Amino acid sequence: MPLSEFDLIERYFRSCGVRREDVELGVGDDAAVLECPPGQRLVAAMDTLVEGVHFPRGCPASSVGHRALAVNLSDLAAMGARPAWALLALTLPEADEAWLAEFASGFAELARLHEVALVGGDTTRGPLCVTVQILGHISGPALLRSGGQPGDALFVSGTPGDAAAGLALEQGRLPAPAQAEYLRERFLYPTPRVALGSVLREYASACIDVSDGLLGDAGKMGAASGCGADIAYADLPVSQPLVEAVGPERARELALTGGDDYELCFSVRPGNLERLLTQLPPQRWGYTRIGTLRATPGVGVVRDGEPMAFAHAGYEHFVRGS
Amino acid sequence: MPLSEFDLIERYFRSCGVRREDVELGVGDDAAVLECPPGQRLVAAMDTLVEGVHFPRGCPASSVGHRALAVNLSDLAAMGARPAWALLALTLPEADEAWLAEFASGFAELARLHEVALVGGDTTRGPLCVTVQILGHISGPALLRSGGQPGDALFVSGTPGDAAAGLALEQGRLPAPAQAEYLRERFLYPTPRVALGSVLREYASACIDVSDGLLGDAGKMGAASGCGADIAYADLPVSQPLVEAVGPERARELALTGGDDYELCFSVRPGNLERLLTQLPPQRWGYTRIGTLRATPGVGVVRDGEPMAFAHAGYEHFVRGS
Repeated sequence: MPLSEFDLIERYFRSCGVRREDVELGVGDDAAVLECPPGQRLVAAMDTLVEGVHFPRGCPASSVGHRALAVNLSDLAAMGARPAWALLALTLPEADEAWLAEFASGFAELARLHEVALVGGDTTRGPLCVTVQILGHISGPALLRSGGQPGDALFVSGTPGDAAAGLALEQGRLPAPAQAEYLRERFLYPTPRVALGSVLREYASACIDVSDGLLGDAGKMGAASGCGADIAYADLPVSQPLVEAVGPERARELALTGGDDYELCFSVRPGNLERLLTQLPPQRWGYTRIGTLRATPGVGVVRDGEPMAFAHAGYEHFVRGS
Repeated sequence: MPLSEFDLIERYFRSCGVRREDVELGVGDDAAVLECPPGQRLVAAMDTLVEGVHFPRGCPASSVGHRALAVNLSDLAAMGARPAWALLALTLPEADEAWLAEFASGFAELARLHEVALVGGDTTRGPLCVTVQILGHISGPALLRSGGQPGDALFVSGTPGDAAAGLALEQGRLPAPAQAEYLRERFLYPTPRVALGSVLREYASACIDVSDGLLGDAGKMGAASGCGADIAYADLPVSQPLVEAVGPERARELALTGGDDYELCFSVRPGNLERLLTQLPPQRWGYTRIGTLRATPGVGVVRDGEPMAFAHAGYEHFVRGS
């Protein structure tokens, strides 16, 4: 018995995520009607995952659902915004009920964690492709890419590179090490740093989420701020499972260029450093200083006092050979 | 010289549509920051167009850009909302600059007409697929699908069926009649009825946009309102070019089941009819009475006092054979 679009929406997406008082009308009409909290601005982002590009064919459906929301939550995190509502455009080759149930559960679990309500969207037939649009709120100034200055300290959250190794494991490009499951989970179920982004508004001068590789994304933040960055190779935070899987050299290379991390890269004025380190202890909040913003454009990585060269800086969708 | 994702966004989408004072931060950071007008609710919709499903391969890029926005504007029109901001997720097999320029111009022209600012989105590599998310505002109650009652008069705007014939022409499934260009334009560049939807809030009891065929969409509105509808075959508005292209019988069949019209189907309480017809003259606003809501579920089409049978009621993405 084939599932109509109407049944599909009804069954899997009618009450996905949390119920929120500020949703006057959710899934089921031509559009959703939402109440914005007075005095707050709306923060909006939209990201797409395409099968075979952003995740390998055969990826668990719950991971696709989780990641489609996570990459958007990560964008809000980078602004310091509080997530509220999501819309989902799901293009599917066929209405596979088992896949849909798993997809919806992956999406819903993360939505509940961040108190997000799914309020609308579209289901269409075609090559597997998921676009999520996320809406959140912010009071006071947002955290921008453009606020950095030369001399600001540069930080990254988490241990970048894990997701890239997880993807390689998922694709069978890397022999499975002892802690393969940890690395695979970092790719399949990334953690958007929403709480960190929210508190960083009081301390950081600029922020970006690391989706295409730390080197490239730090470069984008630097460029938006009209400056560059020096990254200290020795200070790059790499996880023990990653080092065990690929060795210390390749681990740091993946930390710089891997992509899919959904960590936050941020800068802090020298005058705010002590307050940051005291009030948001790095070991509790999970971030590491990796360098300093500089006046010269570009991002340099320094090892034993020598600049290092990298073949590519991050993922670029439309540059051949990347 | 290949175009990077960054260059692509910069070149074609940085200032697409109008500049709006309520956009604090648009394209270029991790998310957009927007100011909601006090006392108004936010109205949000999202629709996807997939190549080979929602438009034929080789469709003019300006039409793809226009339609991606139009189908979303049509959703806001059906709620009676005023459009403000859009986000665009564009998945492309390759960064073809001529295609992109044309796509952006089709999108931008319609955006300017409705004072919409493009504030964010995503560009990714993959099979051609466009998702637009639209945000608008509304003060006072929105126009819902669920407000109809038995006895309400049923209306439709424009001349449905034209777009279906236009698509058939575009695909070479129909020999080109004298006025082929008019019909093709109705498919390629549909007119979202934003102004009509906005004024209808004062008169209509329920409203839906006709995207999947009048019969099916009137049925959805009826079902949401807990009733059905009788449509008078003789009253169906069909355009002269459509009748010339396919004959009077097939014209009315396409008007009922064709899809891609982006007209509004709405109901009006008997007590509001005179006010509607006086204050919004049908010949000026371009709408026609086609029937009446009834207590019995389903939609019946009556011709010369006899009920008619139809093979299918509208486009269903996940029902085989439709």
